[in-house]
Amino acid sequence: MNISKERLSLLREAMKTRGCNYFIISTGDPHLEENIPDHWQIIAWLTGFTGSAATVVISEDAALLWTDSRYYIQAGLQLEGSGFSFIHPVQGGKNDFAEWLRENCLKESIIGLDGHLISDRKLRRLEELLAPLKIRFDTGFDPFPELWTDRPALPSGMAMDYPVLYSGKDRVVKINEVRSEMKKINADYQLLTSPADIMWLLNIRGNDARYSPQMSCFALISRDQVILFADEERIPFRLLIEFDKQGIVLLPYEDTEAVLAALPMRSFLIASGGKTSASLFRAVPKRVRIIDLPSIPSRLKAIKNKTEIDNLGKTMIKDGVALSKFFYRFEKELGTVPMSELSLEQMLEHFRAEQDDYAGPSFRSVVAFNGHSALPHYSAVPETDSGIGQKGILLIDSGGQYLTGTTDITRTVSVGNPTLGQIKDFTLVLKGCIDLAKAKIPAGTRGIQIDILARQALWENGLNFGHGTGHGVGYFLNVHEAPPSVSPSETAETRSPVEPGMVFSDEPAVYREAEYGIRTENLLLCYEDEETSFGTFLKFETISLCFIDKKLIDKTLLDSRQIAWLDRYHEVVYEKLTPFLEKEETDWLLEKTSPL
Amino acid sequence: MNISKERLSLLREAMKTRGCNYFIISTGDPHLEENIPDHWQIIAWLTGFTGSAATVVISEDAALLWTDSRYYIQAGLQLEGSGFSFIHPVQGGKNDFAEWLRENCLKESIIGLDGHLISDRKLRRLEELLAPLKIRFDTGFDPFPELWTDRPALPSGMAMDYPVLYSGKDRVVKINEVRSEMKKINADYQLLTSPADIMWLLNIRGNDARYSPQMSCFALISRDQVILFADEERIPFRLLIEFDKQGIVLLPYEDTEAVLAALPMRSFLIASGGKTSASLFRAVPKRVRIIDLPSIPSRLKAIKNKTEIDNLGKTMIKDGVALSKFFYRFEKELGTVPMSELSLEQMLEHFRAEQDDYAGPSFRSVVAFNGHSALPHYSAVPETDSGIGQKGILLIDSGGQYLTGTTDITRTVSVGNPTLGQIKDFTLVLKGCIDLAKAKIPAGTRGIQIDILARQALWENGLNFGHGTGHGVGYFLNVHEAPPSVSPSETAETRSPVEPGMVFSDEPAVYREAEYGIRTENLLLCYEDEETSFGTFLKFETISLCFIDKKLIDKTLLDSRQIAWLDRYHEVVYEKLTPFLEKEETDWLLEKTSPL
Repeated sequence: MNISKERLSLLREAMKTRGCNYFIISTGDPHLEENIPDHWQIIAWLTGFTGSAATVVISEDAALLWTDSRYYIQAGLQLEGSGFSFIHPVQGGKNDFAEWLRENCLKESIIGLDGHLISDRKLRRLEELLAPLKIRFDTGFDPFPELWTDRPALPSGMAMDYPVLYSGKDRVVKINEVRSEMKKINADYQLLTSPADIMWLLNIRGNDARYSPQMSCFALISRDQVILFADEERIPFRLLIEFDKQGIVLLPYEDTEAVLAALPMRSFLIASGGKTSASLFRAVPKRVRIIDLPSIPSRLKAIKNKTEIDNLGKTMIKDGVALSKFFYRFEKELGTVPMSELSLEQMLEHFRAEQDDYAGPSFRSVVAFNGHSALPHYSAVPETDSGIGQKGILLIDSGGQYLTGTTDITRTVSVGNPTLGQIKDFTLVLKGCIDLAKAKIPAGTRGIQIDILARQALWENGLNFGHGTGHGVGYFLNVHEAPPSVSPSETAETRSPVEPGMVFSDEPAVYREAEYGIRTENLLLCYEDEETSFGTFLKFETISLCFIDKKLIDKTLLDSRQIAWLDRYHEVVYEKLTPFLEKEETDWLLEKTSPL
Repeated sequence: MNISKERLSLLREAMKTRGCNYFIISTGDPHLEENIPDHWQIIAWLTGFTGSAATVVISEDAALLWTDSRYYIQAGLQLEGSGFSFIHPVQGGKNDFAEWLRENCLKESIIGLDGHLISDRKLRRLEELLAPLKIRFDTGFDPFPELWTDRPALPSGMAMDYPVLYSGKDRVVKINEVRSEMKKINADYQLLTSPADIMWLLNIRGNDARYSPQMSCFALISRDQVILFADEERIPFRLLIEFDKQGIVLLPYEDTEAVLAALPMRSFLIASGGKTSASLFRAVPKRVRIIDLPSIPSRLKAIKNKTEIDNLGKTMIKDGVALSKFFYRFEKELGTVPMSELSLEQMLEHFRAEQDDYAGPSFRSVVAFNGHSALPHYSAVPETDSGIGQKGILLIDSGGQYLTGTTDITRTVSVGNPTLGQIKDFTLVLKGCIDLAKAKIPAGTRGIQIDILARQALWENGLNFGHGTGHGVGYFLNVHEAPPSVSPSETAETRSPVEPGMVFSDEPAVYREAEYGIRTENLLLCYEDEETSFGTFLKFETISLCFIDKKLIDKTLLDSRQIAWLDRYHEVVYEKLTPFLEKEETDWLLEKTSPL
């Protein structure tokens, strides 16, 4: 019997004992982050599906899994024989577990879930949707402490001090900035549920999750105090003393709900219903007025300060040097040394690891050859690992965590001679990437307004891509960081203007199923360009540094300004990287970056 | 004593008697429409300000008026000596009356207003904003029946049948379409508060407000009945008999609230909180579940059917012929016959009135010379009427109501030789107008995503304009019609995708205060272009027909595709209009539309 089937049947027994007809579990931890500690990888343990986002619904006779388009193929493969069915929306399945419940749930059923692992907003929408069915929710159902016997422990490593040399701003200054924003909207308290917000605020970093230097914790900022909910043993003694002087008080992680429950009458608390678990959100008593807004630190930390921007510039050089060395070696060894997706991933990691201040990858790399490159978030596993042949498309999307910032870059290169179709697709994607990069916009413009710039050349040719164009990028923090978002859709967390100092990705793409995928991704830094009588205007600097494969470019499809942009970009890449390259690498890069 | 001062002091007495500390009145009628009957022009009567949108707040010692940027200059002039102060946001005033109240309102005050004249959404936001001040709202305060002795009566004219020849679809078919949409979201009732929705649904038209062929009425659609709330005397007898056969029941206009109050337990009602007055919205008992969505007819009527599209094509020719005759006469008489903004407005109306099926202007024309053209919605009055000199910029924004559709078009022409600056501004505006017109977009794209296309050329030059790029246009109905909206912002009413059959304006602009303004406006019709493996793609047809002044174009600023677009557009204008023009007009138009 498949291990997942076994676990499923144990879970169904637990549901029966508890009296739940349905059980819902979505990927997530009590902080509702993307990068979560192994302790919270419940869906992977239960179903075998290892994608980074999914929802599972279990009833007596159904066990279903939903995920997004990134993982349609992976989910189909990994769930085989597991007892769980993957619901493929394009193949006639319901788009969404909530819709499925609305149509299939029996009236007056009881739905179990763990209210610590779902946002209040998501749960509220579900409650509203199912209201006509008179469903009862049992939000305290958590069977895994018993079922999952070899579960990884909760993280317990030490946090580290992250000095001003890197962070650019003292924590006391940051706390005061947050307080002055709180004052503007008359708030008495700011609840922080996102560890990244707290890492930024307190100039600390942790090591609880893969790919992101965070420590799981909550915080509550009041007008004269910051309460950090984290176990005292996790904070270095020297930091504890500093915190004490700076009005930062430590309370146990488990006390968060109790402290919220005791907030004074008629006080105003900022808490984001989309980023706070239902259990925590509902622990706030009715007498406290909740201001449901994205956290103040989420916006402030997205606006990089001068030190961060300077460090980021140096980081981009390090990352560009690693990538250049990698591509040089790749081209040299192609056809002589056997290579596969996994071996290239290791080779790239090797070159990054040679750089100063490198701390590890900022996400699981996508190294994808031919058909695999058509899956936007493919990651090779030994079963799928593809050898690199003499001809095809190789897409590499990777990034690094450096003490001096976080990178995220995608390059698509041609192995052997590309086809005309590949050249056209690549050039259209590149046009979009350039058009967004060279945009000039008035202050106040939102990401949803500029998304089209990266897509228009594709749309004109009846092409498109199914993901957003750009996401914010943290600074030695999460590689996906709201609010910046360049996308056809918005959430409460991303619905805010692009501001000077923000960094976000610019990554248009085309995916041709089972054939190949093309994506070009750079990071853009927003800066103030000029002030006219019509307002303040902003522009972007492309800060990622790596050549773009000219073999895949049809120059006749570019207009003169796009050509000028690319030639200038290649000039900068050459100038900034060659001081750190060997002679033969420099010669090679000269050719790679010569004018079109 | 100024008449407004007198009325203000009577109003303050009425407030005192009623016990209200503050009184709020916003432009609007019980249907919250833009074009309102004279009976509801309360702000104009009270303050002398005649702009189409404003809010007034009165207390014992303050009398303040807010309006939008279209009317800043007009409000300043018209309120002089009235006792009312215009609050100019750019000159340090509060942006918004609600913000002003939040900062200035005394705790525990009573605010009076007429709940029939404010949307529920707007009132709710106000209540939330002022909650910390413990304000009480007296939503039944309406002192005008007594104060306004010579008030125009409520409209009482007859509605007219609007046959399928024009509407393209039988009312029974439309009602069934609405019901099938209601079924999809499990709604039992659809409340219609917008007369335009009801005119469309029932294939009738009225004559209650200037510029829009509407009759004030409400309607309620259930699964087997349509209740039309309108006085029986207003409906022609022949129509009453048809209605009776078709399940359309007439009830008195005043009964709307009572019928809503009697809706059955646990039924589901679609009603838009943004388009329904607070009084009506709150008449719905708690036992009824409100689905707060834009009305189903608002979307269906925006998707023009084949008959409407065909008629609209003919209407554009009529309107283009009138405009061509007007501009021909204007050029011929310039310098020989004295002309002013007002005389040109009359002359244009004269040429439109010559066309078949013409019913009147679709809004008050903007005929604006030089400095006046910098005011986006300037309308000449005798006191401001400017003679047309030998040199300058003339902007004309006008439209017609035809039985066969509604038009809205802006052309800016140069009188004498334009300056280089004017030529550059005009060409940048034109680039935007063309770039939006020739866009290709995937189905599902919203207006906010494509707005940038009309602005990018301006932004690159540090320019911008402060209004939306485009609004939906009704079909022999309101010239401003949601949902279509191409704008940097969205409302619940406009947040929906552009769909084939929708018609909206494309009107980028530049305004240089006290110098000149430039705007070019065409109507676009959305149609399905192609289906690829990446989805369905849509394009637009520019349906307005009038030459664009080549004297104001710098060809070197246009790219080859923009030039090709303009030359082709001018070819179509010439081909379609000349069959209806005199020989000398045809010769003149040939020159106006010759290739760049």
